[in-house]
Amino acid sequence: MDFLDEPFPDVGTYEDFHTIDWLREKSRDTDRHRKITSKSKESIWEFIKSLLDAWSGWVVMLLIGLKAGTLAGVIDLAVDWMTDLKEGVCLSAFWYSHEQCCWTSNETTFDDRVKCPQWQKWSELLVGQSEGASAYILNYFLYIMWALCFAFLAVSLVRVFAPYACGSGIPEIKTILSGFIIRGYLGKWTLLIKTVTLVLVVSSGLSLGKEGPLVHVACCCGNFFSSRFSKYSKNEGKRREVLSAAAAAGVSVAFGAPIGGVLFSLEEVSYYFPLKTLWRSFFAALVAAFTLRSINPFGNSRLVLFYVEYHTPWYMAELFPFILLGVFGGLWGTLFIRCNIAWCRRRKTTRLGKYPVLEVIAVTAITAIIAYPNPYTRRSTSELISELFNDCGALESSQLCDYINDPNMTRPVDDIPDRPAGPGVYTAMWQLALALVFKIVITIFTFGMKIPSGLFIPSMAVGAIAGRMVGIGVEQLAYHHHDWIIFRKWCRPGADCVTPGLYAMVGAAACLGGVTRMTVSLVVIMFELTGGLEYIVPLMAAAVTSKWVADAFGKEGIYEAHIHLNGYPFLDVKDEFTHRTLATDVMRPRRGEAPLSVLTQDSMTVEDVETLIKETDYNGFPVVVSKDSERLIGFAQRRELILAIKNARQRQDGVVSNSIVYFTEDPPELPPNSPHPLKLRRILNLSPFTVTDHTPMETVVDIFRKLGLRQCLVTRSGRLLGIITKKDVLRHMAQMANQDPESIMFN
Amino acid sequence: MDFLDEPFPDVGTYEDFHTIDWLREKSRDTDRHRKITSKSKESIWEFIKSLLDAWSGWVVMLLIGLKAGTLAGVIDLAVDWMTDLKEGVCLSAFWYSHEQCCWTSNETTFDDRVKCPQWQKWSELLVGQSEGASAYILNYFLYIMWALCFAFLAVSLVRVFAPYACGSGIPEIKTILSGFIIRGYLGKWTLLIKTVTLVLVVSSGLSLGKEGPLVHVACCCGNFFSSRFSKYSKNEGKRREVLSAAAAAGVSVAFGAPIGGVLFSLEEVSYYFPLKTLWRSFFAALVAAFTLRSINPFGNSRLVLFYVEYHTPWYMAELFPFILLGVFGGLWGTLFIRCNIAWCRRRKTTRLGKYPVLEVIAVTAITAIIAYPNPYTRRSTSELISELFNDCGALESSQLCDYINDPNMTRPVDDIPDRPAGPGVYTAMWQLALALVFKIVITIFTFGMKIPSGLFIPSMAVGAIAGRMVGIGVEQLAYHHHDWIIFRKWCRPGADCVTPGLYAMVGAAACLGGVTRMTVSLVVIMFELTGGLEYIVPLMAAAVTSKWVADAFGKEGIYEAHIHLNGYPFLDVKDEFTHRTLATDVMRPRRGEAPLSVLTQDSMTVEDVETLIKETDYNGFPVVVSKDSERLIGFAQRRELILAIKNARQRQDGVVSNSIVYFTEDPPELPPNSPHPLKLRRILNLSPFTVTDHTPMETVVDIFRKLGLRQCLVTRSGRLLGIITKKDVLRHMAQMANQDPESIMFN
Repeated sequence: MDFLDEPFPDVGTYEDFHTIDWLREKSRDTDRHRKITSKSKESIWEFIKSLLDAWSGWVVMLLIGLKAGTLAGVIDLAVDWMTDLKEGVCLSAFWYSHEQCCWTSNETTFDDRVKCPQWQKWSELLVGQSEGASAYILNYFLYIMWALCFAFLAVSLVRVFAPYACGSGIPEIKTILSGFIIRGYLGKWTLLIKTVTLVLVVSSGLSLGKEGPLVHVACCCGNFFSSRFSKYSKNEGKRREVLSAAAAAGVSVAFGAPIGGVLFSLEEVSYYFPLKTLWRSFFAALVAAFTLRSINPFGNSRLVLFYVEYHTPWYMAELFPFILLGVFGGLWGTLFIRCNIAWCRRRKTTRLGKYPVLEVIAVTAITAIIAYPNPYTRRSTSELISELFNDCGALESSQLCDYINDPNMTRPVDDIPDRPAGPGVYTAMWQLALALVFKIVITIFTFGMKIPSGLFIPSMAVGAIAGRMVGIGVEQLAYHHHDWIIFRKWCRPGADCVTPGLYAMVGAAACLGGVTRMTVSLVVIMFELTGGLEYIVPLMAAAVTSKWVADAFGKEGIYEAHIHLNGYPFLDVKDEFTHRTLATDVMRPRRGEAPLSVLTQDSMTVEDVETLIKETDYNGFPVVVSKDSERLIGFAQRRELILAIKNARQRQDGVVSNSIVYFTEDPPELPPNSPHPLKLRRILNLSPFTVTDHTPMETVVDIFRKLGLRQCLVTRSGRLLGIITKKDVLRHMAQMANQDPESIMFN
Repeated sequence: MDFLDEPFPDVGTYEDFHTIDWLREKSRDTDRHRKITSKSKESIWEFIKSLLDAWSGWVVMLLIGLKAGTLAGVIDLAVDWMTDLKEGVCLSAFWYSHEQCCWTSNETTFDDRVKCPQWQKWSELLVGQSEGASAYILNYFLYIMWALCFAFLAVSLVRVFAPYACGSGIPEIKTILSGFIIRGYLGKWTLLIKTVTLVLVVSSGLSLGKEGPLVHVACCCGNFFSSRFSKYSKNEGKRREVLSAAAAAGVSVAFGAPIGGVLFSLEEVSYYFPLKTLWRSFFAALVAAFTLRSINPFGNSRLVLFYVEYHTPWYMAELFPFILLGVFGGLWGTLFIRCNIAWCRRRKTTRLGKYPVLEVIAVTAITAIIAYPNPYTRRSTSELISELFNDCGALESSQLCDYINDPNMTRPVDDIPDRPAGPGVYTAMWQLALALVFKIVITIFTFGMKIPSGLFIPSMAVGAIAGRMVGIGVEQLAYHHHDWIIFRKWCRPGADCVTPGLYAMVGAAACLGGVTRMTVSLVVIMFELTGGLEYIVPLMAAAVTSKWVADAFGKEGIYEAHIHLNGYPFLDVKDEFTHRTLATDVMRPRRGEAPLSVLTQDSMTVEDVETLIKETDYNGFPVVVSKDSERLIGFAQRRELILAIKNARQRQDGVVSNSIVYFTEDPPELPPNSPHPLKLRRILNLSPFTVTDHTPMETVVDIFRKLGLRQCLVTRSGRLLGIITKKDVLRHMAQMANQDPESIMFN
């Protein structure tokens, strides 16, 4: 009659800011599965229950897809409305955005649809003027006020209700998926507050995007639904499979790219990604994309504002400017990461970090003041990107398409030859150059503030501006110099040979690649945005160049850099460990340190164990045959030891402080007057992971990564020598890379 | 002065039909890398060499892409020509296919282009008649003769020059990528013969495809180029990374689907797929696709014959027939796998297998005799699939598009409403039904013969025929019953509501999924064939249904079934091991068997070791402290022991049969007259992988899979108890699944 046959509460859970043991989670899930399978043969009801259990994975995916798609749609609609609210209001229905307001009006020409009477700027509404200096100043002032309002509301909500809602969330999600516990990071409050504040900050006009935070929001949805099914709620490993799929759904709705989302989750975010998860992620990503599409937030039955289709091919000679854009993207990535990390470190270490609200207000005010006068920064960044990506068709009325038309030319709509640039294009070039500088500087200060902020969109904007400028340059060069040898072959007069919009897209890919170091997923996302295999080569050339250039200055992408900055215990799959150290160099105790705290299998009393627990803060203790032989028999978790002793003291008769603790299978017969023994074999892990002291650290790192271990014992010829924890491995890796090992903070 | 400091030849290679040790390969590569990095600081020349080494991965990918793309193009062109050669010849240039022949002619109308005067059927050329019974019989006879010729040539070439060139090659490539050695399987001869015979068998009209063999061809290219670079040629682990990428390039050119190819390699073929490989695979796949496109074998600037773009949406109600097609696909998959495996087993075990040439001739004759009279089986299977996928536009002259047009209707070309079927469609339905039965039966007998044979195309053909028939059925039902409640909402009279071509594509996906159990990669390949996100949901519904239905009858796909049939040691990542056994149940020696053969660290003579090697055939021996204590200190490979002793006897003075073999660090001082000791610590693996006897087999299987181990030692409290090899694991898994454990044949 061993009370431990009944599991006691809280066994198998982890403490906050600790690392999970993947192998253990996996074997617990198999146990669970086995139980259900054997039960399912007992009755029809149990059989149905087992079927439901088997299907619950797909149900969770469906729910995540639906919810993530809906939330993305709601966010898109709300951002659209609130961004326009900064400029004016719809008289017929105040909840309409500018575009929706003028859709419903009966005006038919394009110009009238933009300036329909129902839509009134604030100056028109308040003082009855829409032109003139005073109206401009009033509108300017109200624009800033609305922006400050939104930003203040956002930062206050984050501070008061959900501090975890700030940032992009991707570094933390990477860490969580690698097996770290951060309670509340994916909670309901975070979900709610992040959704609301995301709308606020994007509408406030700050230089940030909603794409990264959308991944966090989708993961919150994933966590929410997985806690509804015991299969996932009780197993931290299985829960992470759901979260990986949720991340894919998040990217899927952020970019309208389901395949790209799955690859992003695989390449960038996930840690443990079995094939089953691949398939389910794909399902969740598709459901999310179709939900968003049926909401149709942009009214163009596309999932993103900047979907575009090009109609002209590209030419080999253009690879040179594309590669140049790649170099620019790599340099921008390096510059951004260095400056942003330096600024964030300063925020962490100096008094600056104590005034997050003030910081947000100040940055918002500066952004709004500088952004308003320039038409390219005044509008929302997605709209800007969309305009930069667009090819100049015959119907395009934008300033960027102000070319001088040859009046003798009559051609089909889609086939417009290269033309000389008009004055509008030159003005646009100046404004774009100013916008570029402004975006570069302000994004460095914006990312990392205590509000939700993604950097996909600002990075893409930087790249798109640079790309469009290069594109227009090449186009004009080709127009004015048709006879140059590089243009002669493919760019005859009257041919449509250069597409500046494509340059913008290539530039956007390069800059995004430089900052995040994504490769395949980046190209696939861009491919899904253009819908043509045609442009993969330019995109790939730029992405590869950008990655190589950026890697030459430092291997870390922005997410890894932020993980590092925060000291999360993240063992990157991509880092290669190539040093010659051995397990014996890394294990604890080091030479000269106190010997390893161990338990013996049959000679310690309850009190001894309790003292050991009290005096140390290790997460577990190896159990050996005896202090002399030190031959390893198992490993006991601290948390479970404490619970077991507490339970035994409360419930089991006769267990007192000087009861002997037995980890052996059959405790010997005790003399009749000795206290009742405490048998703890059930909580003993009889298959602890061991390596020999001669094992190269490279292999140890590989084992930790692939098996997701939390600790590993080191032996020599069967004798226990020491222990290596994940933290030890990370510290060793930091040391080998000449970084401060103390930057690794958690266990 | 230990001669073993110099590595002796052949250390670190593997024998044929053995399994590699991934961990060891990886650490050897790291050593190599470390050496190059430290050397690169010595001189500029070494620095350049290190750069070249770092770039060699990309160079290999580029070369593979170029070669695989070129070969695919050449195969496509040759197949096109030889398929037409069975029917006639081009008078203006005999090396032109029917289509090319008539392109060059000046005829302009479509009908004239098909029947241009330069292209002559054999009967026209030989007896001057193109119509009539005698001409038909002559053409029929020559068709069969050509087919027999091609098939005989193919099977003879395979038998004489490269027996490994037969089959699809994917089961073997999966096994090789999982770490098995089959010398010559990816050799130059195999590459050459497989390419030539592939052209022959596809042209002979047998029911097989070139897609699977193209993957094999691409892998041969990969092997060829990787043996040119020492980084890959000397490391079996790194070589497999290249092969994974080559497989992606193969699928990329087979289907014109680079992303699908990478996912196929990831999901279906590869075993160890680090992120670096993902990126490189993508590069190889793209280069291959672009090479093929610049060859442009089909003259439509598409990579495959059956690329198609649909213009009408699908409707919710159509999901029902799509799911039905999924069920059909699953049933077809099950039927095919069961029958084909039964037939292949019969071929292996009975006298049938002794006459491979006769078998091929017989099957070719039967195929040709039955195929010729039916227009849908006479043409090549890719053309058939292409016609079935196609939507009936206004210009389509095929029998399948023989609808009765409403003469009052004038509409744009792409928007044709549903119409009543004409007599041609009814004839086509009958012929398709016959073709379906024929394809189903003949494919079962064709796949597995001693010729190159893929089954993607026949499977897709079966599905496409069934799908098109269902599609036409639904279309006619909708046309005649517009008022039924299921049609009323979306299928008004005069609307273009049902696309039979889409049904064909969904059916093809379902059947391919049923046979191969591909999921994500299948959907992505199909998505790249249609070029629209629109149709992912129907394709996915069919693929999932088909997989579920097929899985209900047996978990194995056709490739796994063939791996099983051949007894390859393949540890599938997808199989879940959920049994409760422990390491102690699986390890050798079992209870009652002779004790484990071990070496001791300092008490065995050279002769003892030689005797042990002679008497056993194990691949390696654990080294223990002494026979009594049995505490493990390391593991020595048989191959290296033999080489070391041979070398020592030849080169090292004083090593004789009764020299003591030392595995310890410092051999003790020996008395002066004793023979010179043999120090073998250098070949000792000091970090053998160990688990305790209580470790659940589930964990052991996981470790074998993830770390790619060859063997693992079992200990209890530091004492060596036994050993588990990959073969033991596979046998145990077979036993647990109620299969014959003796079917696992290799080590």
